[in-house]
Amino acid sequence: MAKRIGRYTIEMENAPRIVGFASVCGKKESEGPLGKNFDMIFDDTTLGEDTWEKAESQLQSESVNKALEKSKLNKNDIDFIFAGDLLNQCISSTFGLRELNVPFLGQFGACSTMAQTLALASIMVETKVARHCIAVTSSHFCSAERQFRFPLEYGGQRTPCAQWTVTGSGAVILGEKSQNDSDPYVKSVTIGKITDLGIKDANNMGAAMAPAAASTLSDFFKDTKTSPSDYDLILTGDLGEIGSRLLYELLEKENIDIAKKHSDCGLMIFNQKAQDVHAGGSGCGCSASVLCSVILNKLKNKELNNVLFMATGALMSPTSSQQGESIPSIAHLVNIKSY
Amino acid sequence: MAKRIGRYTIEMENAPRIVGFASVCGKKESEGPLGKNFDMIFDDTTLGEDTWEKAESQLQSESVNKALEKSKLNKNDIDFIFAGDLLNQCISSTFGLRELNVPFLGQFGACSTMAQTLALASIMVETKVARHCIAVTSSHFCSAERQFRFPLEYGGQRTPCAQWTVTGSGAVILGEKSQNDSDPYVKSVTIGKITDLGIKDANNMGAAMAPAAASTLSDFFKDTKTSPSDYDLILTGDLGEIGSRLLYELLEKENIDIAKKHSDCGLMIFNQKAQDVHAGGSGCGCSASVLCSVILNKLKNKELNNVLFMATGALMSPTSSQQGESIPSIAHLVNIKSY
Repeated sequence: MAKRIGRYTIEMENAPRIVGFASVCGKKESEGPLGKNFDMIFDDTTLGEDTWEKAESQLQSESVNKALEKSKLNKNDIDFIFAGDLLNQCISSTFGLRELNVPFLGQFGACSTMAQTLALASIMVETKVARHCIAVTSSHFCSAERQFRFPLEYGGQRTPCAQWTVTGSGAVILGEKSQNDSDPYVKSVTIGKITDLGIKDANNMGAAMAPAAASTLSDFFKDTKTSPSDYDLILTGDLGEIGSRLLYELLEKENIDIAKKHSDCGLMIFNQKAQDVHAGGSGCGCSASVLCSVILNKLKNKELNNVLFMATGALMSPTSSQQGESIPSIAHLVNIKSY
Repeated sequence: MAKRIGRYTIEMENAPRIVGFASVCGKKESEGPLGKNFDMIFDDTTLGEDTWEKAESQLQSESVNKALEKSKLNKNDIDFIFAGDLLNQCISSTFGLRELNVPFLGQFGACSTMAQTLALASIMVETKVARHCIAVTSSHFCSAERQFRFPLEYGGQRTPCAQWTVTGSGAVILGEKSQNDSDPYVKSVTIGKITDLGIKDANNMGAAMAPAAASTLSDFFKDTKTSPSDYDLILTGDLGEIGSRLLYELLEKENIDIAKKHSDCGLMIFNQKAQDVHAGGSGCGCSASVLCSVILNKLKNKELNNVLFMATGALMSPTSSQQGESIPSIAHLVNIKSY
């Protein structure tokens, strides 16, 4: 049964298995370095819908259905779905999944949501509260731009530290048993605390989120008495170029050096210069689609064996920024191992 | 250990206890029939803040601190806080609780959030993943009106079926052990599925949410092989007058008659006619503040012994309504018993 290790980490004893996963992405993502790894590509990022929000809902429903299909499970096998996104009142999730008829638990952790849904789904399966759970998130460049920044039609110039919201979704299915020996499993999870060092620039999310990432990672290493050298890969969600550099600096103060082990989904998904994405990719769909393609595939074929997946989220809104508030952030961590 | 009863219900075997709770409310709520039951009243609903959103954050922080104080627990005793609210990107929760330094899991279930946070917190304590968890939600009339309807300054006329968002917050602390024999416990939880019968009127939330309430309640009775007569009280969150009537009608078709056992927090908190609130109170803070005052007090002193608390949520946003979408809804249920 799940047990607490140290103050913040939950260790699994029943090895909840990742019995299925799928990723879907848009055209720009398909043209990036990971393009071949996604299960489905939508060259038309409207997905045939008449609004960007409906298109994003569709992304989420496609990734869930694809994950079910790949795992040969039926939606009646699923006990809970943990889902979230960046849109106001999480409408990508609620509209995307309303036909599913599966008990639904809406999650909000901004861009940390993939780690949050995965952590909660793992705990539910580990403790036998559920047989199978789905964890899913999405984001869409066009719906995010108009909600958080400017309507696309305005053609505003992007700051050098801005990141590019990924159009994509990733879904993971956790199960207590697996039909397939190669399915990876969740070893432990660390739930993060809200951190706020006073960053106010909503175009520099990486800087706002780095302290949360440093705090959660440091808690995890203390709790588990491990160090970066014990892992093949420390994968952050969307810190981008600036946030990743700040994370190294913050951890150096605690004598933790992750540089050789670290990758960031936001820096993997696009070819930064050629695709003009400035500081990298971002959004819930960024970490979700990278995890649910290349990373889980490598854990299945044992190219990777021990991965720390840590997604970070900036817990602000346009309203809080307009009111002069700083940006509180959070990071949740999931340790995934090959079986 | 928690076990599944039927398809949708989780039954607790370790009786996670409600070791603390607190409610805070605004002036209008203090003038209603339950006014004397709240732990704190803020006659100035700005709470000294310069925006309504910051005032709502403050409500949430006050209710959590009061619940900690009443339970004689320290924030370091808390392993997770499950929190949510109605504002875009859940900023009442993230800003209200950022100083707390407790692992944070943001929840979104619209007005069902109090039942959702309570259900997840109970499961975490039941399965010993956490020693103590907090479940908290809030709403504020002024922040909700300007986000979902009109700025107050506009002075728009309210439709007869409109409900009045409660300015308030409620927090519950769950623990695996209790120092106090009179602390109630959670017996079981049922997580709801998204239901959408096509209601599109954002001023008639009760009608949109009634089908979700009927579905979850019917699932619960089937799973537990019980009927309304087994309970002292079936308490819905904020169906209001119209939603409650529709719930009776929908359940009648399944030969379930709850009329004699049913109350609605939205119909309890205000004196509808004298306080001019039309179809009743609403908002996450409505069910939270009613539960965390009169209901839990009565469960402690055994005036009530077996209560079904079911909060319902309308999972739409102003954007989805503007795009012509109907209103998907959800209801989660928590069975609370005296010890």
